[in-house]
Amino acid sequence: METNVDVAVVGGGIIGLGIAWEAIRRGHSVALVDPDPATGATHAAAGMIAPASELHYREEHLLQLTVDSASRYPEFLASLAWTGIDPGYRTTGTLVLAIDAADRTALADLRAVQARHLLPVEQVSLREVRRSEPMIGPAATAAFSSPEDHQVDPRKLAAALLAAVGERGRLIPARVSGFEYAGRRVTGAVLEDGSVLPARHTVVANGLAAAQLQGLPCRLPLRPVYGDILRLRVPAALQPLLTHTVRGLVRGSAVYLVPRGDGTVVLGATMREDGNYGVSAGGVYQLLRDAQLLIPAVAELELEEVLCRARPGTPDNAPLLGGVPGVDGLVIATGFFRHGVLLTPAAAALCVDLMEGKPGPPGFERYRPDRFEEGQA
Amino acid sequence: METNVDVAVVGGGIIGLGIAWEAIRRGHSVALVDPDPATGATHAAAGMIAPASELHYREEHLLQLTVDSASRYPEFLASLAWTGIDPGYRTTGTLVLAIDAADRTALADLRAVQARHLLPVEQVSLREVRRSEPMIGPAATAAFSSPEDHQVDPRKLAAALLAAVGERGRLIPARVSGFEYAGRRVTGAVLEDGSVLPARHTVVANGLAAAQLQGLPCRLPLRPVYGDILRLRVPAALQPLLTHTVRGLVRGSAVYLVPRGDGTVVLGATMREDGNYGVSAGGVYQLLRDAQLLIPAVAELELEEVLCRARPGTPDNAPLLGGVPGVDGLVIATGFFRHGVLLTPAAAALCVDLMEGKPGPPGFERYRPDRFEEGQA
Repeated sequence: METNVDVAVVGGGIIGLGIAWEAIRRGHSVALVDPDPATGATHAAAGMIAPASELHYREEHLLQLTVDSASRYPEFLASLAWTGIDPGYRTTGTLVLAIDAADRTALADLRAVQARHLLPVEQVSLREVRRSEPMIGPAATAAFSSPEDHQVDPRKLAAALLAAVGERGRLIPARVSGFEYAGRRVTGAVLEDGSVLPARHTVVANGLAAAQLQGLPCRLPLRPVYGDILRLRVPAALQPLLTHTVRGLVRGSAVYLVPRGDGTVVLGATMREDGNYGVSAGGVYQLLRDAQLLIPAVAELELEEVLCRARPGTPDNAPLLGGVPGVDGLVIATGFFRHGVLLTPAAAALCVDLMEGKPGPPGFERYRPDRFEEGQA
Repeated sequence: METNVDVAVVGGGIIGLGIAWEAIRRGHSVALVDPDPATGATHAAAGMIAPASELHYREEHLLQLTVDSASRYPEFLASLAWTGIDPGYRTTGTLVLAIDAADRTALADLRAVQARHLLPVEQVSLREVRRSEPMIGPAATAAFSSPEDHQVDPRKLAAALLAAVGERGRLIPARVSGFEYAGRRVTGAVLEDGSVLPARHTVVANGLAAAQLQGLPCRLPLRPVYGDILRLRVPAALQPLLTHTVRGLVRGSAVYLVPRGDGTVVLGATMREDGNYGVSAGGVYQLLRDAQLLIPAVAELELEEVLCRARPGTPDNAPLLGGVPGVDGLVIATGFFRHGVLLTPAAAALCVDLMEGKPGPPGFERYRPDRFEEGQA
C-alpha cells in the first residue's frame, strides 16, 4: 500500500506535469505516475503559444481558454525558474503566408473572424514582410502578421516540470490500470501491479491512453491524430533563417516553421488519422515540399530528427476537462489535441481550482468530459 | 608493444573487414584496428551486387573488377556460413526506368555500352514489367532489365565479417595515426596512443580517413561524396512492394529502391560534395519525390531511418588499390566510392595475393594508389 497523497496524477505529459506542479506549488502533496514521462505528444510539440494564429474555424469556443492560458505563461514559468532550466519562452511573432487564390481567401476569411474577436492579426504587405524575413520565397502571395505570439520549447518546459515535480513531489515509474472507488468517490489509482496509490484527488491526464483505463465513469471519445514533425538545423551561413514563426496555407495544406534559439527550426505537422504510428514517408515529403515553397532555403538545412506522435483528438477538438457529475475525487484532463502546450497553465489552474472546491472559470462546463454521453447536450 | 601479426588492417569498414577475413582464411594472423567498425559508409550502403546496372559512362575500366568481384560473392559468403549470420544475399533483378525523353535517350545509350560489354541488360516493355511489378506508376516511359543482379545486406555482411574476424583474428578498438618504417619497409601501424602494432603487412583500408594518416608514401586524393539514404517499411497491405531493385533516371536524377527480405526498402542515394555531413533536407525531399514518381505507393511507407554517410571518391571514380612501388609491407585499399560492397571480395583477394607475392589480376596496375602523383601517367 502506497502512502496517501492529496493528488495522484495519471500521466506525465505536459498536461499531467503542469497539473502536478500547480498542485504542488499550492501546497498539496502530489504523486505523478508515468512509466516514461514526456515522451509522447509533448516530445513532438512545436510549442507555439499563439492563441490568435492557432484560431481555427469552429474552434472559437476554445479562444477564451487559449487566450487565458497564454496570459498565464509568464507567471507559470516564473514559478519554475528555481529549477535552472530555461524553457525557451520568448516572443516570436507569427507570419501566415498564402500561396494561391484559395489560400488567400481562406486566410482573409480567418482574419475577419480573428478581427471580430479583437485578436492582434493584420494583413501586411509582402514587401514589408520580406524586409524582416528575406528568406521568404517568391511563391508567397499574401501575408498576415500576429506580432504578439510567443513560443516555448516543450521538451525544456517538460524537463523543468519533471525536475520540479521530482524535487517537491513524487514520480512513480509505473502504469495505471484503473481506479479505487468508495461508493461514488474515487479514492486512488490502481497500478498495473495491483497496488493502490490512495489519493484525495485523482487526475486522468494520460492523453490517448486515458480511454483504456478501467472503471471510468464516462466514455472518453479520444482518437489518435498522428503528426509527422521534423527538426532541421540551420547552417551557420544561413543563420538566422527566420525571426518569426512562419505558417503557410500551401494550396490548402497547413505547414509551419518555428525557429528555435538553438539554431534549429521545427517543421510540422501533418494530421493523419490512418492508424499508422510510424513516420509517414508521404507526410515528410509533403512537409518538405510545402516548407520549401514558403522558404526555399529549407532545402539547404540539415535534417536532424524525424518523428511521429499521436495527439488525442476529440469530436469537437476541445479538451475533455473537469470533473464528472456525481463522481467525487476524480478530474479528467485529456483530449488537448493540437493545444496541449498552449493550454497547460490554464488546464493546471482549472484542475487544481476544482480540487480545492473553487468555481471554475466562466463557461468551463463546455469542456465537461461527459458531454458526449447519451442524454447530454 | 603489441605482439607481431602477419597482417595489420587499418579500418573496419566492409573493405577492411573483407581483407582481414580473406587473410585469416588463408592462414595469416590478423589484427584489425578501428575504434568503431562498420559504422561509416558500410552502414549506409544499399548492397547492390549489380555490375551491369552499376556501369557508368567513363567507368568502363572498372567493369572487369566489378564483374570479377560479383562472381566471387557466393564462395566468399560460403566461407562465412559458420558464423550463423545470414548476410541476405539473393538474386534481385534490376529494373531501370526512364521518365522523360532525355532519360530514355541516356538509358538507351547506356544499354548500347552495356551490350558492347556483353552485359545481360535488355529493354523490356512496360506492359511486361508491370505484370511482375504492378506498383510502378504511370510516369515511367521505358524500362531496362538486368535479371541476373544480386543484393546483399551490408550491415549483416559486416556483422558476419566482424564475428569471423573477432573469433579468428584480433579486433583492436583504437585509431591509427601512421606507420613504423624500417628503411623503405613498413613494419607496422602506429596507434594514436603511440604504441606500435608490428606487422609484416599493413593494409590501409580506413576510407576517407586514410588521407590523414602520417607517413604515407604517396598522397591519397580522396574527397567525401555525401549520400543521404532512407530506410522505409512497407505496411503489410502493400507487401511485397517490389520484387526487383528499381532504379530510375528521373529527369536526369538517379534514384534507386532496393527491396529487402525483412519487408523494408532502401531508398537512395544522393551524391553531394557540399561538405555537409548531416542529412540534407533537400536531398531527402528529392529522393522521396523521385521515388514516388517511379512507385507512387512510396508515400504510404513508414520512414524508419534517415542517414547520411560520406563515400571516399577519387579523381577517376576507381579505387586506390595495391602497393606503392619502392615501399614494402604496405597495401592501400581505399577510394571505393559507390562500389565498396560490390568490390569487397575482389579487393580482398587482390590485397592478400599481393601480400603473398602473387601477381595481381591482369590490369590491376591501373588502380595503383600513386597513379595521381606528379610524373605518373
